Amino acid sequence: DTYPLQNPFNPMTILREFEYGEIKQEKGKVIREFNVVANSSLLQLNSAISFVSWNLNNRVPGPTFRAKEGERVRIIFNNEDGHSHSLHFHGIHPAEMDGVKPVRHGKNTVYEFEAKPFGVHLYHCHIAPVTRHISKGLYGMFIVDPPQPRPPADEMIMVMGGYDINNDRNNELYAFNGIPNYYRDRPISIYKNQLIRLYILNMIEFDPVSTFHIHANMFKVYRTGRSLTPDEETDMITMGTAERHILEFSYSYPGQYMFHPHQDIMAEYGCLGKFNVVSS
Amino acid sequence: DTYPLQNPFNPMTILREFEYGEIKQEKGKVIREFNVVANSSLLQLNSAISFVSWNLNNRVPGPTFRAKEGERVRIIFNNEDGHSHSLHFHGIHPAEMDGVKPVRHGKNTVYEFEAKPFGVHLYHCHIAPVTRHISKGLYGMFIVDPPQPRPPADEMIMVMGGYDINNDRNNELYAFNGIPNYYRDRPISIYKNQLIRLYILNMIEFDPVSTFHIHANMFKVYRTGRSLTPDEETDMITMGTAERHILEFSYSYPGQYMFHPHQDIMAEYGCLGKFNVVSS
Amino acid sequence: DTYPLQNPFNPMTILREFEYGEIKQEKGKVIREFNVVANSSLLQLNSAISFVSWNLNNRVPGPTFRAKEGERVRIIFNNEDGHSHSLHFHGIHPAEMDGVKPVRHGKNTVYEFEAKPFGVHLYHCHIAPVTRHISKGLYGMFIVDPPQPRPPADEMIMVMGGYDINNDRNNELYAFNGIPNYYRDRPISIYKNQLIRLYILNMIEFDPVSTFHIHANMFKVYRTGRSLTPDEETDMITMGTAERHILEFSYSYPGQYMFHPHQDIMAEYGCLGKFNVVSS
Ligand SMILES: [Cu+2]
Ligand SMILES: [Cu+2]
Ligand SMILES: [Cu+2]
Ligand SMILES: [Cu+2]
Ligand SMILES: [Cu+2]
Ligand SMILES: [Cu+2]
Ligand code: NA
Ligand code: NA
Ligand code: NA
Ligand code: NA
Ligand code: NA
Ligand code: NA
Ligand SMILES: [Zn+2]
Ligand SMILES: [Zn+2]
Ligand SMILES: [Zn+2]
Ligand SMILES: [Zn+2]
Ligand SMILES: [Zn+2]
Ligand SMILES: [Zn+2]
Ligand SMILES: [Zn+2]
Ligand SMILES: [Zn+2]
Ligand SMILES: [Zn+2]
Repeated sequence: DTYPLQNPFNPMTILREFEYGEIKQEKGKVIREFNVVANSSLLQLNSAISFVSWNLNNRVPGPTFRAKEGERVRIIFNNEDGHSHSLHFHGIHPAEMDGVKPVRHGKNTVYEFEAKPFGVHLYHCHIAPVTRHISKGLYGMFIVDPPQPRPPADEMIMVMGGYDINNDRNNELYAFNGIPNYYRDRPISIYKNQLIRLYILNMIEFDPVSTFHIHANMFKVYRTGRSLTPDEETDMITMGTAERHILEFSYSYPGQYMFHPHQDIMAEYGCLGKFNVVSS
Repeated sequence: DTYPLQNPFNPMTILREFEYGEIKQEKGKVIREFNVVANSSLLQLNSAISFVSWNLNNRVPGPTFRAKEGERVRIIFNNEDGHSHSLHFHGIHPAEMDGVKPVRHGKNTVYEFEAKPFGVHLYHCHIAPVTRHISKGLYGMFIVDPPQPRPPADEMIMVMGGYDINNDRNNELYAFNGIPNYYRDRPISIYKNQLIRLYILNMIEFDPVSTFHIHANMFKVYRTGRSLTPDEETDMITMGTAERHILEFSYSYPGQYMFHPHQDIMAEYGCLGKFNVVSS
Repeated sequence: DTYPLQNPFNPMTILREFEYGEIKQEKGKVIREFNVVANSSLLQLNSAISFVSWNLNNRVPGPTFRAKEGERVRIIFNNEDGHSHSLHFHGIHPAEMDGVKPVRHGKNTVYEFEAKPFGVHLYHCHIAPVTRHISKGLYGMFIVDPPQPRPPADEMIMVMGGYDINNDRNNELYAFNGIPNYYRDRPISIYKNQLIRLYILNMIEFDPVSTFHIHANMFKVYRTGRSLTPDEETDMITMGTAERHILEFSYSYPGQYMFHPHQDIMAEYGCLGKFNVVSS
């Protein structure tokens, strides 16, 4: 592919960018307020293929919202896209805040709830057909930190997405954080012996599962981020759509290492990246 | 869809119905004896589509057999359907009771074994092609309770099934407990703060896995029901065909909440329901 | 099928054959040296269908390499096949030993690294398109034993593979250890009450997952072989491509018992075997 592609966002920025919102104090409670906008934007997936995405804040995946367990979260959602959309959050909240009602073009709504429980969650549009509203790009990660923060680490997120270019309910392209093969062509630099904490989410529609593998290493798995001790250690995890986990690892040797689903056909069509491990 | 559909069973009954059999004492042992009949019946899956099912006791899924670990179970199986069938149980038992031999039309056989180990098991016809005999409807749940019963709860079962209407080895419709969208149109009433114990089983053929998600909440997972302490907490579980688990949760806020596979395409084609949480 | 099929290897041998290499001492370290050759061979998958495989040492799967954690492993790889290939190992090792660079026809290379961590790992060719190089047969198991060996058992390996006969990126046939239905027609003899330790690996490309079920019994799962205590007990495990585990079980009753993926369509197309449990 010929670079640079013209895109409204940069996957390298998305990788380590966490949105903490605007902090407010109301009645002695911390409130994190997020202003977000649904819209359409053209993505240049590679030198030949463009794609009209529906997204939040002009990026696919949308912003990574982050709060601490017990804080209050307020999402002010403006729909400036031509279609009706909504934001359905995972996590625990009342039925009224569940985000399954359409918000029409030019309208807005407010979702407000306590951030709980700690873990890796997600949000996505829940307007029918959900397969389409998700695969067009309206999704993102929602991280709820435990009361005692996890140990220091180089934290990053990867959201796996699929693109159904020709509307046949099959994906022709795949990507980590929005743009196919981005991290293959621009490896992610990390330090040798540095603890990496990777928040990973599978948002690929139409394929029943995705897997995730890192080369030449093993990772500890904290399933759904719901515990502070690892559930298992492996180098291959299988995830249904909307599954998400925390993976922790560090590389002991410098050099370049691939990561990709081990459904190798997804890797061949864009879901492939590299770590570049450098000495500190 | 126009209701009521004409069907030989009611999914709302299946939801909380457990068959304990006829209790007998033989040589100081508790025996639970079940009389069951394989037959064909026409299912009305929605206002437009009917389906000839092969089933047990005129229902899809078949009866939920239930016994305590160590009790003896005796299933007297009558085949009144035109095809040969069998009942293969999961769990531990001798080869002669494994249910892989055909029982012809008008014939019967007896399967008898100790109910073990405790957990969520299943049964299904094991006549070739197994994909067809399962997808036509010959399956059900087999629950073995631990010696010390689990804590009191509102217990229910959900069996996920797929319907291959046109015999192309793909499913056109999906359902919880037999009828597509039944619990979407007639939400399941549960009480606020009431512990729900959901026995879930994926019996969908042709699709490699199914997932299961409940809205606005998290559940504890007891994998295959083989432990008395939870294995993990999440809101999204991925299950191959014949996988089954116990999920426990309770809702803290009243209102309506969807549940569905997060392979959203299955939800769009009938595998979608709702809980209606009411204050006690 | 008419037996015997003409094949360059015998799945019954592969089942319990472990390659420990040639042991050398260099600078006080144990080195296990393996000489292996990539080549093409014709497989007779059943009485009607032949398949040109790309493989290691004239077998599919390739040899089961085995070492103890901390030992040094040296694989001398000769490529005598017409295509470029490589050997990519799972486990922890430096980038230079990661096996993603092509080794051309007539060339050789040496992969050398410490065997770590203990567990069930694998190797496969990593030349693009990886789906093709794997599905043609260039893969195998790599077992790293823990410092304190596991308890005595009847140990065996099963590698699940798929065959895309007509190059349409779908599998027409499936097999345990290379030849479809081999263990269905020649059941594996095991002793009653003997602990079986089964190392299982899913190397099926094109299908998103495979499952594995044994009849009339339950098994303990040691995920990726990374622990010495079981993670769960079940009779049905779901595995993405490259997932591998240790399963332990013993049969209490004599007789014949099937094992197969519970994606029953895979079982119908060759992935089906039997244990023949005999009294000792
Ligand atoms: Cu939407
Ligand atoms: Cu969701
Ligand atoms: Cu049957
Ligand atoms: Cu079964
Ligand atoms: Cu290769
Ligand atoms: Cu691999
Ligand atoms: Na959640
Ligand atoms: Na498509
Ligand atoms: Na079982
Ligand atoms: Na069909
Ligand atoms: Na590994
Ligand atoms: Na094919
Ligand atoms: Zn939308
Ligand atoms: Zn690898
Ligand atoms: Zn790779
Ligand atoms: Zn049948
Ligand atoms: Zn949800
Ligand atoms: Zn939903
Ligand atoms: Zn190759
Ligand atoms: Zn079985
Ligand atoms: Zn079976």
